[in-house]
Amino acid sequence: MASIIDLIPQEAKLTPDALNMLKAQIQIQQYPKGTLLHQSGYMPTKSYFVKQGLLRSFVLDAKGKEQTFMFAPEGWIISDLGALTFQQSSQLSIEVLEDATVEVLTNDFFEISEGLLSKLGINISRLLIKRNMVLQKRIIMLMSATATELYQDFVTTYPDIMQRVPLKMIATYLGITPEALSKIRGEIAKNNT
Amino acid sequence: MASIIDLIPQEAKLTPDALNMLKAQIQIQQYPKGTLLHQSGYMPTKSYFVKQGLLRSFVLDAKGKEQTFMFAPEGWIISDLGALTFQQSSQLSIEVLEDATVEVLTNDFFEISEGLLSKLGINISRLLIKRNMVLQKRIIMLMSATATELYQDFVTTYPDIMQRVPLKMIATYLGITPEALSKIRGEIAKNNT
Repeated sequence: MASIIDLIPQEAKLTPDALNMLKAQIQIQQYPKGTLLHQSGYMPTKSYFVKQGLLRSFVLDAKGKEQTFMFAPEGWIISDLGALTFQQSSQLSIEVLEDATVEVLTNDFFEISEGLLSKLGINISRLLIKRNMVLQKRIIMLMSATATELYQDFVTTYPDIMQRVPLKMIATYLGITPEALSKIRGEIAKNNT
Repeated sequence: MASIIDLIPQEAKLTPDALNMLKAQIQIQQYPKGTLLHQSGYMPTKSYFVKQGLLRSFVLDAKGKEQTFMFAPEGWIISDLGALTFQQSSQLSIEVLEDATVEVLTNDFFEISEGLLSKLGINISRLLIKRNMVLQKRIIMLMSATATELYQDFVTTYPDIMQRVPLKMIATYLGITPEALSKIRGEIAKNNT
């Protein structure tokens, strides 16, 4: 995955100056597996675009158990945009699950992007509303879907990472037990043969 | 609660023309308890600002049971902004829980507001990011909070509606059983005496 810059739509036709201004907010870093990039309870100052490897964000539940909030494979951005924007502490921790090459984005990256894009008539709200829809769908799934539907949605969202992540960690993302997850996978495999 | 127009920040200093343009997108309606304003599976065309009464949105779970997604007492807006914006069918149904007076807002209301506000340098993204934070927090609560924490968050979010809504409906919002909810309320009452 090249760079977060590539996610900016072509029609934005950024000037060399604008491009340089954005690039100044990006730092490429390599982190080994296990690195904790952000700890919950602290105010985040960075976001991460994954060029290579795998990150995740998680929360600690009331029993001190880690529950996965999201995974971020290649091409994903992982961040707590709300906490960043309003300078609050984040409930999420971010950790490296596979040795990773990431673009570390400053606090200003999104603000500058938004300024540049809105000047060009590109509406950033639609992106935020899309993110909104993803979150709303996740709530609805957690409230109302069967474990099988949750699993199928996971596979659609993250087609490549099933083999890269411990089953236990996926189970916490789905809010089901690892045993229930194994059973579902077994049933689906049986139905596909 | 007067009108959704009152939620527009003072500093916007809307011109009479702008105000009339917005007002043309609002229709005041009264609905009796039990009215289904929107049915899941259909594309929504309206949003609702609650002047008086109580609305809620809900989903049907895999067992056909209604799970409350959100409540909307006086002063709240209830909508599926994502489905509206991208003209998709909504997973949510909207119903009237108490005889209600609402402002029915057209599809264009938010687009016009955004245009007016952004011309005045008021950033609509921050509102969307706030909404984002509420949704993210809800996911984290559903994943990681104890039933007592869920209940306390509910009381903070909706200080006035505990007496107005059946316990069973609140339990589905929290994702716990009505029995667990009764027990928590009993314990809190005991600790407060």
